[in-house]
Amino acid sequence: MGGVVEFAIRQSVHALVDRDEAAAQDVLRSEARINQMEIEIDDFAVRLLARHQPMAKDLRFLTAAIKINNDLERMGDLAVNIVERALSLIRQPPVKPLIDIPQMSKLVDSMVRNCLDAFVKRDGQMARGVLLSDDAVDDLRDAIYEELVGFMKRDPTTISRSLDLIFVARNLERIADHATNIAEDVLFLAQGIDVRHHAESR
Amino acid sequence: MGGVVEFAIRQSVHALVDRDEAAAQDVLRSEARINQMEIEIDDFAVRLLARHQPMAKDLRFLTAAIKINNDLERMGDLAVNIVERALSLIRQPPVKPLIDIPQMSKLVDSMVRNCLDAFVKRDGQMARGVLLSDDAVDDLRDAIYEELVGFMKRDPTTISRSLDLIFVARNLERIADHATNIAEDVLFLAQGIDVRHHAESR
Repeated sequence: MGGVVEFAIRQSVHALVDRDEAAAQDVLRSEARINQMEIEIDDFAVRLLARHQPMAKDLRFLTAAIKINNDLERMGDLAVNIVERALSLIRQPPVKPLIDIPQMSKLVDSMVRNCLDAFVKRDGQMARGVLLSDDAVDDLRDAIYEELVGFMKRDPTTISRSLDLIFVARNLERIADHATNIAEDVLFLAQGIDVRHHAESR
Repeated sequence: MGGVVEFAIRQSVHALVDRDEAAAQDVLRSEARINQMEIEIDDFAVRLLARHQPMAKDLRFLTAAIKINNDLERMGDLAVNIVERALSLIRQPPVKPLIDIPQMSKLVDSMVRNCLDAFVKRDGQMARGVLLSDDAVDDLRDAIYEELVGFMKRDPTTISRSLDLIFVARNLERIADHATNIAEDVLFLAQGIDVRHHAESR
């Protein structure tokens, strides 16, 4: 499921940046598959809980899996949101060369890949790296916002397209937030450390 | 926890509509309390899973509680997002009289209250009502978006303020999405019906 979601996120930005409608269709097709996997994984995890009544480490693993499954499904939805904006944008002239969004997307891709790798390997160190990237993503989102508001003010004909790009950046940021949630669950799983809501002490 | 989150959502829109900075501070103060409750409830639910190894209905209740707890915490975050926009907006002249946002907020408030009541009473009928409101919220969000884009195009000096209002509507919509998630969990709990990702058959 992680692989399909990673692919959907990458293809959604590729559709936008390279004006590739086929890539956009890939993402729309992946949604049904992601939704189906979410239900199956959830049912399977709850069945395991019921049948095997796991203790301590195994129980913690299963409750983490239930949460991560939910995060992944929402990341898939956010990739679909990006593609909806992309499909509108690729039918219009570009507002500006896209530089910040690809840069932001590269960072988000690596967060998604690393939080999933960290989960598979129960690697707390790698999970911690994901938490550290979150601030950089927020900074890029703010820079993109400010730049596009500038475009809108100078040239009101760019308003709708600029708004679409602002929402793409916002969706990427929300994907990064879900990767952060997953990394927090992995840290708890790997090291028994609860880092939720203590961003200040990271 | 539901009560505190409901209060935060209501106060966030009240802060915006009535330009009430004290209400905004209420919401900012509630965030730490919501975060703390999320951790306590989550720990408690996992402890119950481990100690009592519940079967069938009780297990389903606990896994639903873990998810709902997570949804409530995110709804609290979204109320904080609204307040951040409100604090910026109440220091500037209004773009327009706020009519649609209070209307949307009233609908969202009732969804939040009803999904929580439905959970407490395990009332599938009430949960189904929440699902039915979600489309009306999306329609209001789209109407607000279109109207504000119109303002931005006609008068570029309103761009920043209009964007803030667009994000308020977006945050309200996301709160409604979380209420919908909770209602889906309640339906599953009350009637064993899995309605996720089958909006078309509602």
